[in-house]
Amino acid sequence: MEVTRQNFKDSLSTVCSAIDEADFLAIDGEFSGISDGPNVSALTNGLDTPEERYTKLKKHSMDFLMFQFGLCTFKYDQTKSKYIIKPFNFYIFPKPFNRTSPDIKFICQSSSIDFLASQGFDFNKVFCHGIPYLNQEEEAQLREQTEERRNQQANGLGTPFISPSSSKIPAHVPDEQKDFINKVVEKVERLISNDEKTLDLEPCTGFQRKLIYQTLNWKFAKGLHVETLETEKKERYIQISKVDEEEKKKREQQKLEREQEELNDAVGFSRVIHAISKSGKLVVGHNMLLDVMHTVHQFYCALPQDLQDFKEVTMCVFPRLLDTKLMASTQPFKELITNTSLAELEKQLKESPFKPPQVETAEGFLSYDTAQEQLHEAGYDAYITGLCFISMANHLGSFLTPPKSFISARSKLIEPFFNKLFLMRIIDIPYLNVTGPDCE
Amino acid sequence: MEVTRQNFKDSLSTVCSAIDEADFLAIDGEFSGISDGPNVSALTNGLDTPEERYTKLKKHSMDFLMFQFGLCTFKYDQTKSKYIIKPFNFYIFPKPFNRTSPDIKFICQSSSIDFLASQGFDFNKVFCHGIPYLNQEEEAQLREQTEERRNQQANGLGTPFISPSSSKIPAHVPDEQKDFINKVVEKVERLISNDEKTLDLEPCTGFQRKLIYQTLNWKFAKGLHVETLETEKKERYIQISKVDEEEKKKREQQKLEREQEELNDAVGFSRVIHAISKSGKLVVGHNMLLDVMHTVHQFYCALPQDLQDFKEVTMCVFPRLLDTKLMASTQPFKELITNTSLAELEKQLKESPFKPPQVETAEGFLSYDTAQEQLHEAGYDAYITGLCFISMANHLGSFLTPPKSFISARSKLIEPFFNKLFLMRIIDIPYLNVTGPDCE
Repeated sequence: MEVTRQNFKDSLSTVCSAIDEADFLAIDGEFSGISDGPNVSALTNGLDTPEERYTKLKKHSMDFLMFQFGLCTFKYDQTKSKYIIKPFNFYIFPKPFNRTSPDIKFICQSSSIDFLASQGFDFNKVFCHGIPYLNQEEEAQLREQTEERRNQQANGLGTPFISPSSSKIPAHVPDEQKDFINKVVEKVERLISNDEKTLDLEPCTGFQRKLIYQTLNWKFAKGLHVETLETEKKERYIQISKVDEEEKKKREQQKLEREQEELNDAVGFSRVIHAISKSGKLVVGHNMLLDVMHTVHQFYCALPQDLQDFKEVTMCVFPRLLDTKLMASTQPFKELITNTSLAELEKQLKESPFKPPQVETAEGFLSYDTAQEQLHEAGYDAYITGLCFISMANHLGSFLTPPKSFISARSKLIEPFFNKLFLMRIIDIPYLNVTGPDCE
Repeated sequence: MEVTRQNFKDSLSTVCSAIDEADFLAIDGEFSGISDGPNVSALTNGLDTPEERYTKLKKHSMDFLMFQFGLCTFKYDQTKSKYIIKPFNFYIFPKPFNRTSPDIKFICQSSSIDFLASQGFDFNKVFCHGIPYLNQEEEAQLREQTEERRNQQANGLGTPFISPSSSKIPAHVPDEQKDFINKVVEKVERLISNDEKTLDLEPCTGFQRKLIYQTLNWKFAKGLHVETLETEKKERYIQISKVDEEEKKKREQQKLEREQEELNDAVGFSRVIHAISKSGKLVVGHNMLLDVMHTVHQFYCALPQDLQDFKEVTMCVFPRLLDTKLMASTQPFKELITNTSLAELEKQLKESPFKPPQVETAEGFLSYDTAQEQLHEAGYDAYITGLCFISMANHLGSFLTPPKSFISARSKLIEPFFNKLFLMRIIDIPYLNVTGPDCE
């Protein structure tokens, strides 16, 4: 399922119930670039310690944007003896929430962009329709601001322009604005005496809007609701409506509810990550260190300086991780698998001694066909990452006496692979151990 | 006319003849962002000297990408007493030319991207179909590399993999590759004895390709043309063709020509800028300092540190500039014009005491309608910038005795406005004087 800003709100419950019912989840991200410093092979020097690797990736990779997030949920159906999958492709963009919210800058690397373009990536889905997001701190700030504004309004302080309780003395109107303000007053007097319910003024400057608010508050204390709105072209204008006190309160209540909803909209895609965290489900990825770092960085908090702190934060966001590249590079798979790149791995894991995993796409979701590769679409990559995990897990069952053909995501057999993230090209230290000390 | 990588080659002659026949040109750029440091108002501090402003813009604005370039050519038709216009919208992207070419990184500012998205900007035209470009230095380097390779081939040195004159001794094939290479040799032997003309091998690694080249050179000295090609998925594979010596030479000649064409394609959009420079035509822009800086930076050379050097380079790229924002802020227009933002200026310059300029869109070009604003499409902004210039130039004619209703782009009356670029919000120093010392 393709999820953009346009259908995000309607899809959220589908996403959350898919997460909640799943046996395990698979994820994958697509980025606007990989390295803004050294080239990728220098970035992944073979002599790095895990600390050095983390520091390098943090420094040289976090200014790129993860703009597509693939999630594929896998739920085992006992009667059918197969997994039922639900794949999602989320398009993500840090659209500024309002004029005061941070204006995120991110880097694009032309080779990465060109590569995605050659795979048919739709950039308009990101830049025009991407789902916004906030990290924990931004969300808290915004909730605080909204709370504060409400308290002020409840205490009759009001915001300077909007509240009916602001100054009841005539505004000081500078000479060059007198004509403008007089014309507005005439229009409002006409509104009060005619049958119209609302009056839209022409867009004007912030200073003029302030004068209008002050003047109307002073001249027409009751019976009017005054509000600043935006045209499609983002020009601000004032709308004046005739209302009784009850209507006025109702409108202000509606405004609060609208604000609350806007706030939830601003948290946006982060709500999906919160649902994953809360579910505690096993999250599978392929060579997933960068995916995990970007996810934490964009949707949870700025990456800590210290590797140990990063591990702790990661466990909050993803309580149980499994990296299929690490699994494929470890015994007993190491000897059987010659190429651990995702596409090759998926092919090899369909052939003997492995067995092709049995899956079915849930009703209402478009099926992926592994014969028609859609590599580098995040949802597809998440899907085949899940397939790789199933094949490898089931293969472990063949060593049992008696052998078992299905090994669940909760089996003790896969625990040794938990929370170890593959480290590209580090000699002797194959993984980052998220829940313990690293090899030396 | 929309110009992307797909129709660029076919459009280039149309663009060049439009430039050559024009009386003047108008330009405008759209960027992926404005400031990666201070916010825009801090970036344009009122107390900056021109040097400081230049340094700030260079530091904080050049990592963004100018990804749409608008050009509108204006040619005066005496018999019709109106300008005939040709508007172009170029989409631009620094697609890497080959594996060794620089991998450009650029910043996107979410507010700028979101703003363009709200105006209906098509990002796929940039990222998937943008025209590539090279600056002078990159172009020279690439030409040199090509030249060198040719000389080597002419001298019989050849490139290690391709030339028939490379080592005639058997390749050292490691044990684990022997099977692979033997199978290739068998296939080639079959090719030689059957009716097929060519044989495409499976994609393989660079090392395997090297072994194939060496083995085939040793075993089949004549009658074969061996070439590395790429699949759509960018996987490299070897194609082997049966050819006689004449055919072989012809193919190598074709290869050189193809290389030459690829080189021209890589220079790409910079060729349009070269045509503008060479024409020496008056280039009109609105608040155009950033447009000029980005144009020099992307298509000519890295911006010099020193303002004086920047002025010299600018005069090479744009020998004659006119900034309509500066013109509108200068006598005799200053007193008549209350708002010099482009859209407002265009509106005011249609009203008394100004006269709406008479223009007609050339056949085969889509017309713009100023009533249906398409602001922030670079071609449209270039178009209305040209309209503003015409109105103001003609207005100057009303001061002559007898008054003249048409003032050409070559008139002495507009010379005082040449090569002075508007400086946002600098108190007392309204412009950057590209051809002389600045005010102090």
